[in-house]
Amino acid sequence: MPPQRILTKMLDITDLIDVEVTAAYVKYAIFVIVKMMLMSVATAFFRMKNKAFANPEDVVRYGKEEIAKKYLRTDPDVERVRRAHLNDLENIVPFLFIGFFYSFSGAGLSTALLHYRIFLGSRIFHTVSYLVPLPQPCRALSWLAGYLVTFSMMYRLVMVGLSLS
Amino acid sequence: MPPQRILTKMLDITDLIDVEVTAAYVKYAIFVIVKMMLMSVATAFFRMKNKAFANPEDVVRYGKEEIAKKYLRTDPDVERVRRAHLNDLENIVPFLFIGFFYSFSGAGLSTALLHYRIFLGSRIFHTVSYLVPLPQPCRALSWLAGYLVTFSMMYRLVMVGLSLS
Amino acid sequence: MPPQRILTKMLDITDLIDVEVTAAYVKYAIFVIVKMMLMSVATAFFRMKNKAFANPEDVVRYGKEEIAKKYLRTDPDVERVRRAHLNDLENIVPFLFIGFFYSFSGAGLSTALLHYRIFLGSRIFHTVSYLVPLPQPCRALSWLAGYLVTFSMMYRLVMVGLSLS
Repeated sequence: MPPQRILTKMLDITDLIDVEVTAAYVKYAIFVIVKMMLMSVATAFFRMKNKAFANPEDVVRYGKEEIAKKYLRTDPDVERVRRAHLNDLENIVPFLFIGFFYSFSGAGLSTALLHYRIFLGSRIFHTVSYLVPLPQPCRALSWLAGYLVTFSMMYRLVMVGLSLS
Repeated sequence: MPPQRILTKMLDITDLIDVEVTAAYVKYAIFVIVKMMLMSVATAFFRMKNKAFANPEDVVRYGKEEIAKKYLRTDPDVERVRRAHLNDLENIVPFLFIGFFYSFSGAGLSTALLHYRIFLGSRIFHTVSYLVPLPQPCRALSWLAGYLVTFSMMYRLVMVGLSLS
Repeated sequence: MPPQRILTKMLDITDLIDVEVTAAYVKYAIFVIVKMMLMSVATAFFRMKNKAFANPEDVVRYGKEEIAKKYLRTDPDVERVRRAHLNDLENIVPFLFIGFFYSFSGAGLSTALLHYRIFLGSRIFHTVSYLVPLPQPCRALSWLAGYLVTFSMMYRLVMVGLSLS
């Protein structure tokens, strides 16, 4: 590459990176990941509290085989936490990718923070709605808020991409 | 760092980034993520159409407890969409990471596009095969195509890594 | 932007990127992704070995409808592999994101490698514990090791972030 083109490319890449927005992304990504990881602990907690396990090796400590076997069962509370966890995976994974791309889209810091904050809030409220449980449409609306935030970020990415090509 | 080393490092990093390939990655990443997110809507649609819900708070609107309770059930169509969604997660998450790394591997734009397009096509065909359902081996082959694309990208990453070290 | 600010920003970004640590991340990311993807093959293997399928179109080859129908069932081995796969998703996705951010946190190569290697080992041991199955607390401890590695990387990210702001 001729030196002039290298310099132009360097400037282009430097231009793409707004360290503040990407740092905000990393911060909120950590928050939602921690929130999601806590669901594993919640599942373990409800499995122990309600004595409902999925594997024979998990119930050995409860005594002889015939006694322990009755704890190999599904429990409504455990299944509820597991559904909330899976819903997190289904929604947080898209957010983490789209939010990362979005942080390089030239969005302003305050707009980016607004997206990241609403998403985090919607997922926390979704889990609360699921585990309490709150009457519908609490859970449905909290899910929808996070879903729309992800689409709003994708909309910007598409618009920026169209203006480049 | 001495100025000369900083410059060399800058040139190395600039060299790694082929904006066109990464932009193509982002575009196809958005497509597969949208495709995956639509599975949530499909699940909700089949739950309402077939009146099969997982949570007591979701069936309150269908009347008194004894009447509503009968809608708390698993339904073959709903379970089918959920399995397709989970299969998406299991396959699209690896693609999104590997495809991202791959976009920095120095692959040509047309080769990269070929990988991304086959993957997108394979996942769309997988969902169609799952939801229609088409006779086997339609679903198996569409799954395999996406699986092999991901391994093909990993193969290049390993080869590039070996040539560097 | 005035040229001086552009240069400062370029140096900042160059400073963030330690190609060796990020290359180590990519290597271990590939390892854990391959490990996770092999769970799909394991599920297919146990479905065929134990003749336990989820979809009517998968059992057509076993004969007429009445005969084939009996293979539409859940099987303890298949469900075990599926739970191990889902646990991988729940734990490997956070690792892939946090490990990526962590590779830009200025961590030394040997510390980063220690984190990545323990995580990989913990997930392999988790799957072995799950599929053999080994008596508890083998599976619980291997899960915990990977969980703590992810939190340890997040701890560094938070500390670095706090020192910047």
